[in-house]
Amino acid sequence: MRQVAVASGGLTRFTKNDLSLETLMVSSVKQIFEKTENLEQKDIDVVLISTNANDKYLANIVSELCGISPKIAHSIESLCNSGTNCIVSAYSYILSGLAKTALVIGAEKTNSPGLVLEWDKSRGQYKHPIYWSSMFTSAHMRKFGTTSEDLAYVSAKNHRNALDNPYAYFDREYSLQEITESKNLTENVRLLDCSMSCDGSAAVLLTSSDIATKFTDRPVWITGIGQKSTSAGFTKNDDLTSMKSTAYSASDAYQMSGRKPTDVDVAELHDAFSICEIIELEDLGFVSKGQGSSYVHQLYDSHDRRINPRGGLIGAGHPLGATGIAQTVEICQQLQGNAKKRQVDGAKVGLVHNMSAAATSSTVMILES
Amino acid sequence: MRQVAVASGGLTRFTKNDLSLETLMVSSVKQIFEKTENLEQKDIDVVLISTNANDKYLANIVSELCGISPKIAHSIESLCNSGTNCIVSAYSYILSGLAKTALVIGAEKTNSPGLVLEWDKSRGQYKHPIYWSSMFTSAHMRKFGTTSEDLAYVSAKNHRNALDNPYAYFDREYSLQEITESKNLTENVRLLDCSMSCDGSAAVLLTSSDIATKFTDRPVWITGIGQKSTSAGFTKNDDLTSMKSTAYSASDAYQMSGRKPTDVDVAELHDAFSICEIIELEDLGFVSKGQGSSYVHQLYDSHDRRINPRGGLIGAGHPLGATGIAQTVEICQQLQGNAKKRQVDGAKVGLVHNMSAAATSSTVMILES
Repeated sequence: MRQVAVASGGLTRFTKNDLSLETLMVSSVKQIFEKTENLEQKDIDVVLISTNANDKYLANIVSELCGISPKIAHSIESLCNSGTNCIVSAYSYILSGLAKTALVIGAEKTNSPGLVLEWDKSRGQYKHPIYWSSMFTSAHMRKFGTTSEDLAYVSAKNHRNALDNPYAYFDREYSLQEITESKNLTENVRLLDCSMSCDGSAAVLLTSSDIATKFTDRPVWITGIGQKSTSAGFTKNDDLTSMKSTAYSASDAYQMSGRKPTDVDVAELHDAFSICEIIELEDLGFVSKGQGSSYVHQLYDSHDRRINPRGGLIGAGHPLGATGIAQTVEICQQLQGNAKKRQVDGAKVGLVHNMSAAATSSTVMILES
Repeated sequence: MRQVAVASGGLTRFTKNDLSLETLMVSSVKQIFEKTENLEQKDIDVVLISTNANDKYLANIVSELCGISPKIAHSIESLCNSGTNCIVSAYSYILSGLAKTALVIGAEKTNSPGLVLEWDKSRGQYKHPIYWSSMFTSAHMRKFGTTSEDLAYVSAKNHRNALDNPYAYFDREYSLQEITESKNLTENVRLLDCSMSCDGSAAVLLTSSDIATKFTDRPVWITGIGQKSTSAGFTKNDDLTSMKSTAYSASDAYQMSGRKPTDVDVAELHDAFSICEIIELEDLGFVSKGQGSSYVHQLYDSHDRRINPRGGLIGAGHPLGATGIAQTVEICQQLQGNAKKRQVDGAKVGLVHNMSAAATSSTVMILES
């Protein structure tokens, strides 16, 4: 199943700035062209744009700004997992034979219309993600005795990991006490347990196996893919201690790749809020249900970087359309041995988990060097 | 190359109404479920949404409204050819093995933000499509002696064809005189030479070859695909008598299918304006350059329906995100012998041409029964 490779990735700093969406996108693409030997604009068959912005025809605009005239070009939107939806689409264009290469570009501005969920007519007034996060937190606390301090461990670990990520939004550590004493947004969600909306872009270049080595001597293969949409409204979920779309996607991705959770050396998890990482560790099969918190304690205490080495969404920031792509860039750098201070030694198998809207949809990808 | 089939299609009337985008989408999907024997919600692996609307997470919302929990679900936007971008994406998901079936759903409302092209920063004040249409018209008139009456023949033919399309926006014929005397929007573009923005939806069900006959005894195969984006701004086009992205896409689609223009029995052309059909007839290779107008006269005089049998965008209306899908539904009905009064006798090979923004991007698909 070594048929489609990620050859290269590009990033901008995740921050708050006045740069336009197009400028951010061109910046991450520029990094790919600078880093990728032999890559010319005429090599690009597909340009897919991941964003929640309302701008139209962005794939053509950004292509023109980059001097690219692709065959296939369009924007893809699925809220917070737009990025991995784009990557999986690019994978299928290459595997179908319609393309040899695809450039996947994500970007978002802090004023993204994807942030307040006006779209979900089934959830009444619960339009802001903190509400679903709060309900997941309550449910997990009730069933498994999870505490505010457990949540703080996720945040402390991911802020600390982000210190070694030069593109991260945050650049300081937070103590457990600072986190548990940060502003209460709901009765159980604190400000420092939330990912931060910000401006940023990420891009990856995918290629078919027959030309991958033209562009890199260390291709990273996409060996497993799982995706699932369970609903639009999270209130259809009858057990808020679990993310069904994530469990389903993980099962498919493991099966396709022939890998199991214990084979995974390094993983990017979609920690939109601290509770998410705890639940996802369980639903991705890294630990059994109810063991997520104690596993995070263990990672924190031993300075183990295998989960969210770049700092996750909590430490690195969450520019919606760029997130799934930035996660993929990180796992590729890890599997290529390029992750510098963030490097997980000997990482060969990586996992990307990206989800939207209270995990009503999820993507899981297995990548291998 | 008979690997991906269109099994079924659904439409709403193209009109102006107060129905929501979601209601329009569910209506065209409902028609597919009513018409398609053995189809159950659990059969659907992919839901792709084609629209220029700003609503987010529509693929999940519409899936939930339809009782579908797909693996892959997102929205795709590329202005007026969003629909065929979706269909080609669905094709590649099926051919890559990630999916067996895909539901492609397009819809638009008259207030679509895709209508005024704020996006194109390279074209200055020429934000409305009538301006590029006018410049194409001037160029073609200058080079080939095309007249206002020639344009009127396109409009008269397509309005007449639309009379037999129960889903069309227009339901009356217009004389050549009425058309040439209709309101001048620019010095050479008249109101009745323009397609009409409207509300509407169209949907198609695609399946892999191994299960196509579960859903239809007359599968229509996608045998050729060509897509090209030349730029974002039409002002980069140095010859406005030609649509380069269309010629390029046609060449790829013919090559992939092993077909040539003379093999095509029936075609849907993207006649956003009358001049478009004339230029496209030339760039798709149906006639040589400069012969588009006389061919339209011939089609009109002989009541030949082979070009735009449902009335084209000019007769049927142009709800942007639905258009490419509605074109595909028409060609499928023609190839299945289901087109009733619009039927082109013995049609075996069909072509869909769908383009965006002054043909800065185009899609051409060859379909065969």
